[in-house]
Amino acid sequence: MANDVIEALRAAVGAAHCLTGDAIEDRYLHDWMVKTPPGRPLAVVRPADTAQVSAVLRACHAARVPVVPQGGRTGLAGGALPAPDCVVLCLERLDAIEEIDPAAATMTVGAGVPLETIQQAAQGAGFLFPLDLGARGSCRIGGNLSTNAGGNRVLRYGMARDLVLGLEAVLMDGTVLSGMNKMLKNNTGYDLKQLFIGSEGTLGVITRAVLRLFPQPRSRCTALCALTDYDAVVRLLNHVRAGLGPHLAAFELMWPDFYQLVTSSLPALSTPLPHGHGAYVLLESMGTDPQADQARFEAVLGEALMSGVVENVVIAQSEAHVASLWSIRDASGELQRIFWPHAGYDVSIPTGELGGFIQACTRAVKKQWPGARTVFFGHVGDSNIHIGVKVDEEPFPEPDIDRTVYGLVRDWGGSVSAEHGIGVLKRPYLGFSRSAAELAAMRALKAALDPLGLLNPGKVLPEPEG
Amino acid sequence: MANDVIEALRAAVGAAHCLTGDAIEDRYLHDWMVKTPPGRPLAVVRPADTAQVSAVLRACHAARVPVVPQGGRTGLAGGALPAPDCVVLCLERLDAIEEIDPAAATMTVGAGVPLETIQQAAQGAGFLFPLDLGARGSCRIGGNLSTNAGGNRVLRYGMARDLVLGLEAVLMDGTVLSGMNKMLKNNTGYDLKQLFIGSEGTLGVITRAVLRLFPQPRSRCTALCALTDYDAVVRLLNHVRAGLGPHLAAFELMWPDFYQLVTSSLPALSTPLPHGHGAYVLLESMGTDPQADQARFEAVLGEALMSGVVENVVIAQSEAHVASLWSIRDASGELQRIFWPHAGYDVSIPTGELGGFIQACTRAVKKQWPGARTVFFGHVGDSNIHIGVKVDEEPFPEPDIDRTVYGLVRDWGGSVSAEHGIGVLKRPYLGFSRSAAELAAMRALKAALDPLGLLNPGKVLPEPEG
Repeated sequence: MANDVIEALRAAVGAAHCLTGDAIEDRYLHDWMVKTPPGRPLAVVRPADTAQVSAVLRACHAARVPVVPQGGRTGLAGGALPAPDCVVLCLERLDAIEEIDPAAATMTVGAGVPLETIQQAAQGAGFLFPLDLGARGSCRIGGNLSTNAGGNRVLRYGMARDLVLGLEAVLMDGTVLSGMNKMLKNNTGYDLKQLFIGSEGTLGVITRAVLRLFPQPRSRCTALCALTDYDAVVRLLNHVRAGLGPHLAAFELMWPDFYQLVTSSLPALSTPLPHGHGAYVLLESMGTDPQADQARFEAVLGEALMSGVVENVVIAQSEAHVASLWSIRDASGELQRIFWPHAGYDVSIPTGELGGFIQACTRAVKKQWPGARTVFFGHVGDSNIHIGVKVDEEPFPEPDIDRTVYGLVRDWGGSVSAEHGIGVLKRPYLGFSRSAAELAAMRALKAALDPLGLLNPGKVLPEPEG
Repeated sequence: MANDVIEALRAAVGAAHCLTGDAIEDRYLHDWMVKTPPGRPLAVVRPADTAQVSAVLRACHAARVPVVPQGGRTGLAGGALPAPDCVVLCLERLDAIEEIDPAAATMTVGAGVPLETIQQAAQGAGFLFPLDLGARGSCRIGGNLSTNAGGNRVLRYGMARDLVLGLEAVLMDGTVLSGMNKMLKNNTGYDLKQLFIGSEGTLGVITRAVLRLFPQPRSRCTALCALTDYDAVVRLLNHVRAGLGPHLAAFELMWPDFYQLVTSSLPALSTPLPHGHGAYVLLESMGTDPQADQARFEAVLGEALMSGVVENVVIAQSEAHVASLWSIRDASGELQRIFWPHAGYDVSIPTGELGGFIQACTRAVKKQWPGARTVFFGHVGDSNIHIGVKVDEEPFPEPDIDRTVYGLVRDWGGSVSAEHGIGVLKRPYLGFSRSAAELAAMRALKAALDPLGLLNPGKVLPEPEG
């Protein structure tokens, strides 16, 4: 049986692109977060195009063999981990940029194109593709879309979902759903692409996409603000939303615990505003007119200072200054080194409630682990906060911290995954953010599109209770 | 049987809100486009809240009685027309604005709130709810979301789909799916709300929504441009996209046939630019700084004039001047009077191809009906063009014109419905824009969520072939 399907797979993609046994390289076995795969695949196949993807899925469907799609394997929730005796369907050879259409402002790409390649191709054609995240050099657009990636510019340009006009996906039975739409307005029946964006490869395999391109911004204005407390943060957010309008591109909160930790621990960082304030916000606008935009930015922040919304502000005066302010926020990348061992979280809470949540979460953690330390930082304009909890206890009590933090997220009506997805790691907590009726509806969709449950099994959806 | 279900409906919503026989007012029987309903309903029910909607659907599900949801019945495709012996489920009493959350920049509403009421409430709280269309006083938000309404500001703010963060919908079996999310980032499993937006009430009944609010713009700059041909229109579009960035709010093409017709036929209109140019574009930007934005707007259009992208331009210098320029574009509302009888179309074509499509469509129509006249106008920035075809023939050959126009849309890879939806009127043409595999996937979704096919039957999805 296993031999039959391998023969079919070799016929589908060519023997050189159907790897089995020791020929399977280690990189296909794990992602950036989970180093130990739950099982070893039967084979890794690397189809060259949509027709081959369809042939692979048809063969696996006929043989009842589970399939796990993979992009760049940079996920943080284990969504691309091989299941035991599955076929890993690697999309890396679908790496063509098929077209850039300047009139439609679109780029048509294969699922295997690395995000950074897309960003560079857009720039070369005089456009911006705004999706951006740390893994840009390794992640691939199919994975970005499957996980509805977020990143640094969601406030202005939206999530990955908002950057797609057309999509092609293949169902488990090999059916190709090709909806390579280039048009902003298209109300012809159900919007099928939405099913495949953010469902982490459990409903279909994304093979191609039509992406939206944007004009390149011509100005960038950046400031770091110090504020008394979270109420002032919300006042500042509304002030700059109104004053900067759609130019507002980033509104990043750094809680004092985070700001103090990174500026004290990392000698390369400056401390542009003193410790001791109640909150720090890094904000940025991007526009079309460098001179007028900087004047506008300074006027809006001047108003915030005069009216007492902010206590202190530093406005970047050069590209080097911009980089130096961002390096404080981006020091979150150093937490593995300067704040270890810790458990990390990527959650959302309605923006107005975030301040109360931070306080409640800090209290709950310190009550349970009196020596614990926390850091809070994130994209507050998107209601997204990242949390680090450091506890000096052996063995590290990660499951207990998970339950404490996710339990609070549930109580505050938040999301246990703002942008990283569910994969395998957050499966036990999906029910903290979604109702039983919603989970049942998700299972009904899964059963409609993959009735045998062969596509990326064991991901996203928890087992039904009882 | 019919009596049993009526008893159950009376119990669910109260006798006063369960109308039968002659008590059913005429307004429940048709929409703005189709005046003759295909059948008379068994009853019209007006539930007061989600629990009552669920009870109505449970009762109809148990009795196998079809249900047709209705909002403001302003649709242009017949999506809300009663089916014979159905129960009309009218959402007009779910008309509460439940909350405005200034920190999250959201408004929580019932499905029955009129669009204009939402716009006014947003304005009263210092925000903008940008969805806008001619029926604003009569249409209701549940209908706007069910049909994924478009309108005048899609270029800047997106379709109705893009303006929703959370949604509550009830399935045909009475299951309430409540996902009243307020957060921009939330990747917890499948994004179920996408199923109900744009599916015209065939998959579930929308009962409540969390809408996104935006800052009110503080500046508005408007201009009318004359150009040599469609190539120049695309060059201007790319020029203003780059120069005005996210402030670009409207880019409306008027083909010479349209511009000449309305400015010659309507004495109230001025003719700010002479007849005889190859294309006319009305464009608008909205920003945060009246003085700087007007200077920027004039500079960007000045560049377009100097480089020969536009032949002539009029920039509005007052609010009255803005209104006078818009009145030319809005004269499309007078076509019923000055351009009759005609068949009207709402289609999309990729922006780069639109010029060629307009020429091909004009040729095809005039070849078949030598005396025919056409008008082309629409939201070219969104790839959306409206078409009017006037033929002096008795009886008016609408089905033949439909086949000619939609056949060309199919050949050019366009959409037979840009923003009005499919309903009953465009059902025969859905297959012109979607593949057999896509239609099969839509049917699989319908079967998963409404296995008995009781919810808004006969809408959107064509009968499977043979």
